[in-house]
Amino acid sequence: MTEFENRRVILNARPVGVPGPEFFNIDTAPVDELEDGEFLVHASFLSVDPAMRGWVNDAPNYLPPVAIGEVMRAFSVGEIIASKHPDFEKGEFVSGLFGWQRYAISDGSNVMAKISDTDQSLSLALGVLGLNGITAYFGLLDVCDPQPGETVVVSTAAGSVGSCVGQIAKIKGCKTVGITGGPEKVQLCLDEFGYDLAIDYKNTSDIGTELRDACPSGVDIYFDNTCGSISDTVFQNLALGARITVCGTAAIQEWDPLPVGPRVQRQLMVSRARMTGFLVLDYKDRYAEAIEQLATWVRNGQLSIREHILDGMKHAPGALQMLYRGENNGKLLINVD
Amino acid sequence: MTEFENRRVILNARPVGVPGPEFFNIDTAPVDELEDGEFLVHASFLSVDPAMRGWVNDAPNYLPPVAIGEVMRAFSVGEIIASKHPDFEKGEFVSGLFGWQRYAISDGSNVMAKISDTDQSLSLALGVLGLNGITAYFGLLDVCDPQPGETVVVSTAAGSVGSCVGQIAKIKGCKTVGITGGPEKVQLCLDEFGYDLAIDYKNTSDIGTELRDACPSGVDIYFDNTCGSISDTVFQNLALGARITVCGTAAIQEWDPLPVGPRVQRQLMVSRARMTGFLVLDYKDRYAEAIEQLATWVRNGQLSIREHILDGMKHAPGALQMLYRGENNGKLLINVD
Repeated sequence: MTEFENRRVILNARPVGVPGPEFFNIDTAPVDELEDGEFLVHASFLSVDPAMRGWVNDAPNYLPPVAIGEVMRAFSVGEIIASKHPDFEKGEFVSGLFGWQRYAISDGSNVMAKISDTDQSLSLALGVLGLNGITAYFGLLDVCDPQPGETVVVSTAAGSVGSCVGQIAKIKGCKTVGITGGPEKVQLCLDEFGYDLAIDYKNTSDIGTELRDACPSGVDIYFDNTCGSISDTVFQNLALGARITVCGTAAIQEWDPLPVGPRVQRQLMVSRARMTGFLVLDYKDRYAEAIEQLATWVRNGQLSIREHILDGMKHAPGALQMLYRGENNGKLLINVD
Repeated sequence: MTEFENRRVILNARPVGVPGPEFFNIDTAPVDELEDGEFLVHASFLSVDPAMRGWVNDAPNYLPPVAIGEVMRAFSVGEIIASKHPDFEKGEFVSGLFGWQRYAISDGSNVMAKISDTDQSLSLALGVLGLNGITAYFGLLDVCDPQPGETVVVSTAAGSVGSCVGQIAKIKGCKTVGITGGPEKVQLCLDEFGYDLAIDYKNTSDIGTELRDACPSGVDIYFDNTCGSISDTVFQNLALGARITVCGTAAIQEWDPLPVGPRVQRQLMVSRARMTGFLVLDYKDRYAEAIEQLATWVRNGQLSIREHILDGMKHAPGALQMLYRGENNGKLLINVD
């Protein structure tokens, strides 16, 4: 036992779809002594990410589901306050899959990155300089190889991934069209994230016509964070040789049983389009490359970011519903109290 | 006017889905004199291809639909019997998009290939040494890059494209699993086309279990000629990093309105799979490379082929229905009378 009292958000039942606050409880627990090869992180910010829905549902996924009674799996960022690990020193800052808790013991295997750029807010390591930015970077550049003059459409265009995708596409000389919900987010897309056009899917009489008008030569690249009817519309407007990154499925409430929608095969054939399922974790060996470039863009003012920081861990249980309802206004984070 | 009397299969109404014989009529017409830059082909064999359904339907496609009153668009192979074209000589053999007719005037733009290997049957130029073989070659090798030991699943496994795909995958050291309809075709897959396993989708109580048992480590490559419920099953068994060539949609009767089916996005994400719409015409500049390799494999006995030759143009109007019903036993051709 140590002097530290942990505070943890525990998964207490198996949800279907997006878990509401009733699926979590917050407890306190002592922090164990470190063993050799371990270090202790004191988290400053906890992350709220769409992928967390998949981590708690009992469906095939890239990681086993979080067990009932376990700390909710999540990214966080903080300072190493004690270490018996040769590669991690007290006083260093790290981000990683440390869970929704104040203190985490790590053997280093769940570390995402060491934070060397301490001139910027630590919270950025969970957003633009973390998995959100890295997802945008590889999901757009590596999977879709955007060329100057191409039309790039982004769903959840004002979100923490989408807003980076739109801005990186712009840096690469593309025309960018964002799809987002509500007039405020449309304004954010245009004013803050530099989209050439933004479509408000919640307030349009005909998204098909709007999209066709916005993309007269078709959609060359579609960075898809939603699936569902928004994506169905985009698929009707693919340009020859279109590339689609399937990054998220925010519009789908449940995947069991499989929801149905228009079959995409003929559209893929007619456009000779390529649709690729993307998971940023596959790029682990190349995170540093992305973070370095993203940090440069942030410093140069080429990459704007918005953060929505909830004050205190008591907000964690309701945070995923808030995210899926689109009630956040920027990268959703929890300030650890 | 020339001495030659043409015989032509004319599209006489706009079908929805697979056109039956009532959508065509056969007429005769004189053959015009050649102009400079033209040559005259006397067809020996006409081709019957799944793509022809798409060419007559009034839906977005890679070519405009065949007009009512026009000769049905189709590939054929024959001999040049007169020429005013500097690059095409009388006595040469050519394949191309010459239509379902006995004689065709061409300016060269619709030529697929000159046939130099006259040691093999001219009909092969419409199958294994024509678009079917070339489709299998690039659709498998270029789009999916098969590696030794990978599991390759092929739908319409005994068909003129599918049978080539299975055999090329085998040449590349893959395990091959064919999906086909009926015990005779299963036997053909195993005995003639060298599949390791063949599944009879028409006579199985549970194709899901059969496929899972056939592919215990998942499906690395799926060469899809069918779409529909067969493909839905395959998508539930994708291995990590799976590649899917979307080559045809034989199981879908109509594309307008878009048919619905299980959404594939989550399966693509979980498996980080890539799904690519494929059209062989995009590889025009590389046909010769494929034909040379395919001809070598045929000569070496590494590539078996089956042909189903209908005797006479009177069979043309019913040939597409026959193909889509799976009643043919090998590459479907019409012997020109």
